[in-house]
Amino acid sequence: MGDGAALPICFLSDYGLADEFVGVCHAVIARRCPAARVLDITHGIPRHDVLAGALTLRGAVEYLPDGVLLAVVDPAVGARGQDARRAIALRTARGGRLMVGPDNGLLAFAAERLGGAREAVDIGSSPERLRPVSRTFHGRDLFAPVAAALAAGAGLRAVGEPVPVSSVVALAEPRAEPVDGGLLAHALLGDAFGNLATDATLEQLTALAGASGTLRITGPGGSVGAHLAGTFSDVPTGELVIYEDSQRMMALAVNRGSAADLLGAGPGDELRVLPG
Amino acid sequence: MGDGAALPICFLSDYGLADEFVGVCHAVIARRCPAARVLDITHGIPRHDVLAGALTLRGAVEYLPDGVLLAVVDPAVGARGQDARRAIALRTARGGRLMVGPDNGLLAFAAERLGGAREAVDIGSSPERLRPVSRTFHGRDLFAPVAAALAAGAGLRAVGEPVPVSSVVALAEPRAEPVDGGLLAHALLGDAFGNLATDATLEQLTALAGASGTLRITGPGGSVGAHLAGTFSDVPTGELVIYEDSQRMMALAVNRGSAADLLGAGPGDELRVLPG
Amino acid sequence: MGDGAALPICFLSDYGLADEFVGVCHAVIARRCPAARVLDITHGIPRHDVLAGALTLRGAVEYLPDGVLLAVVDPAVGARGQDARRAIALRTARGGRLMVGPDNGLLAFAAERLGGAREAVDIGSSPERLRPVSRTFHGRDLFAPVAAALAAGAGLRAVGEPVPVSSVVALAEPRAEPVDGGLLAHALLGDAFGNLATDATLEQLTALAGASGTLRITGPGGSVGAHLAGTFSDVPTGELVIYEDSQRMMALAVNRGSAADLLGAGPGDELRVLPG
Repeated sequence: MGDGAALPICFLSDYGLADEFVGVCHAVIARRCPAARVLDITHGIPRHDVLAGALTLRGAVEYLPDGVLLAVVDPAVGARGQDARRAIALRTARGGRLMVGPDNGLLAFAAERLGGAREAVDIGSSPERLRPVSRTFHGRDLFAPVAAALAAGAGLRAVGEPVPVSSVVALAEPRAEPVDGGLLAHALLGDAFGNLATDATLEQLTALAGASGTLRITGPGGSVGAHLAGTFSDVPTGELVIYEDSQRMMALAVNRGSAADLLGAGPGDELRVLPG
Repeated sequence: MGDGAALPICFLSDYGLADEFVGVCHAVIARRCPAARVLDITHGIPRHDVLAGALTLRGAVEYLPDGVLLAVVDPAVGARGQDARRAIALRTARGGRLMVGPDNGLLAFAAERLGGAREAVDIGSSPERLRPVSRTFHGRDLFAPVAAALAAGAGLRAVGEPVPVSSVVALAEPRAEPVDGGLLAHALLGDAFGNLATDATLEQLTALAGASGTLRITGPGGSVGAHLAGTFSDVPTGELVIYEDSQRMMALAVNRGSAADLLGAGPGDELRVLPG
Repeated sequence: MGDGAALPICFLSDYGLADEFVGVCHAVIARRCPAARVLDITHGIPRHDVLAGALTLRGAVEYLPDGVLLAVVDPAVGARGQDARRAIALRTARGGRLMVGPDNGLLAFAAERLGGAREAVDIGSSPERLRPVSRTFHGRDLFAPVAAALAAGAGLRAVGEPVPVSSVVALAEPRAEPVDGGLLAHALLGDAFGNLATDATLEQLTALAGASGTLRITGPGGSVGAHLAGTFSDVPTGELVIYEDSQRMMALAVNRGSAADLLGAGPGDELRVLPG
């Protein structure tokens, strides 16, 4: 593959932008594959929150250009023995998309959306890695150089050792559970606007709301009536709405306000949902 | 237009960088026009602050490369009926710059700097939009794909329906008013350094300061003497200065400190200015 | 040099990403040298912290692609008379890397890693500067256009006036000092994870820890036992570790916690280190 034909790399992590971690990964990619364009999906995944990373990738994957997905949310980086995790690269069944990251479930939902992994390799001892590999910054020393090599046209087997696709770590789909005439749901993702995506489905909420179209949501900070509606601008200013968001998750929002503040809730918190 | 000749896209929004909104817009652009380079002007406009976005674009526009300006500060996204706003693309009279965004005044000052709009189209039903268009993320589903199409060489009429340029929403220029021997001014823009750009003019402040070159500024948090000077390093550490900033707005700053903290003021707040 | 052969520009500053400063510098570069790719190393250097910028550049420089390094941490921007600083561009002895920034020590450590400056020019009156040069935004008006010109292939002497390399401002290497049977060290760099890089060396800490491999660290907020180990995952959750970080500085970290919070310490603070 010529320089002009390098694949784009989409990059997501929990590194944040306050430090040089993301920039140094960009630099490492530029040295290995100068023609590869790098698109930052986000580096604002909450630290070590593999589930939030996996859900964000799932929501984004259909919008990404063909190429390489580089994802790093890696609480076990540098761990040894039973706490260690593999590092992998895989190719999806549909689209032949390449994905690189820790084998901790981070890539699972996005790969599923594309038919799952058709081929996978363990890149822990990849010939592409920078040596010595630091104990704490595998983004720089391992994942970025492998992604750059794939962008430059290297095959999976040139960057790692084949492993069974069935051995790639999966992630359980979070799902709200029926309980006591309502639902026990969870906030899964927050955003800067105070919206909260949950693990409830449109079917669950529609059945519970019935003809009234209203629900009562109880979070750690309070209990609030909510409208099941199309979007936040369908309800009066300051009111709580539950709607299908742009990632097709059922999300809580306040018109020109913050659902996170109103409910005192953030990712991981329980939300009780009852008829309104 | 060949791939190698795609126009650059300059992108400004209030999406912030904590979430994947900006990254997904980049991805959508890369799918529609892989050769288009995207320059992020800023995504830190205060949420829903159309005036701050418009002023920031005005200050930046003369430094931007020829191409497409994509701007999204869109409090009415998804609204219907009388609260709805149009989505537009326009071409400026000078420079033939292309601009895409909600028709809420956001583009008004930047377009004025380039002679105003010479041609405008309503892109609400653009053939370039992603379907279905979500209720909440028109950046991804409407504005980014239209900007990418323009960057790839599509004409305005290929992405929307012509509308009179006189119908494009304008924005009133904020201006400090004389009152009681002084000025009633407003903080319009803040920055991370605590500087505050205001709606006062150099002429107004020079007349008020007179030979002394000093003023008294009263904000919500206190009343402080200020020097009318060239820049913050012209006054002693910790002192308040009012100077023409790099966007040519009259701004308050504290040498190695924060004017916002000293005056207890932020964007939108009133500032009384009297002779010092 | 043809458009396709422009050098990449790596960009670091203390501008932050909340405002348009970084984006406008990107735009200025794109106008002067459309083919130059710009990699953001970080813009999260603490405001005016020249030492933090210099240390961050030192840790990153070996990972950067050949090309131009543009760095702006510039507390004296706009100052006149004895407080003024020069603006410079230099070429390193090894690798022929080009660097542009204020002459305040910011580039010193990174240049040293590449054999020091072989050639330097004062760019204060560069023909490449944007006129008028504002008093407060030399990133936009001076440093970015000069970096872009160098990326486009201009020689150093085309962008400034030669100055002796011996006149380029150096920076003292911070180093922990032996005191009272221990070390007087300092936190130099923090990151978003609460890790703190210090001015102690592996040799100093190994000698102090002895066979036990343990130390006692006292910061402004408390006194805590620490393990000298390979990385944070080598110690139990919640415990303090001192290890060689990915920039090869001795750093304090808490496994799945924050050393900055535990010790009540941030960049610049004193840390007393005693045998554990």
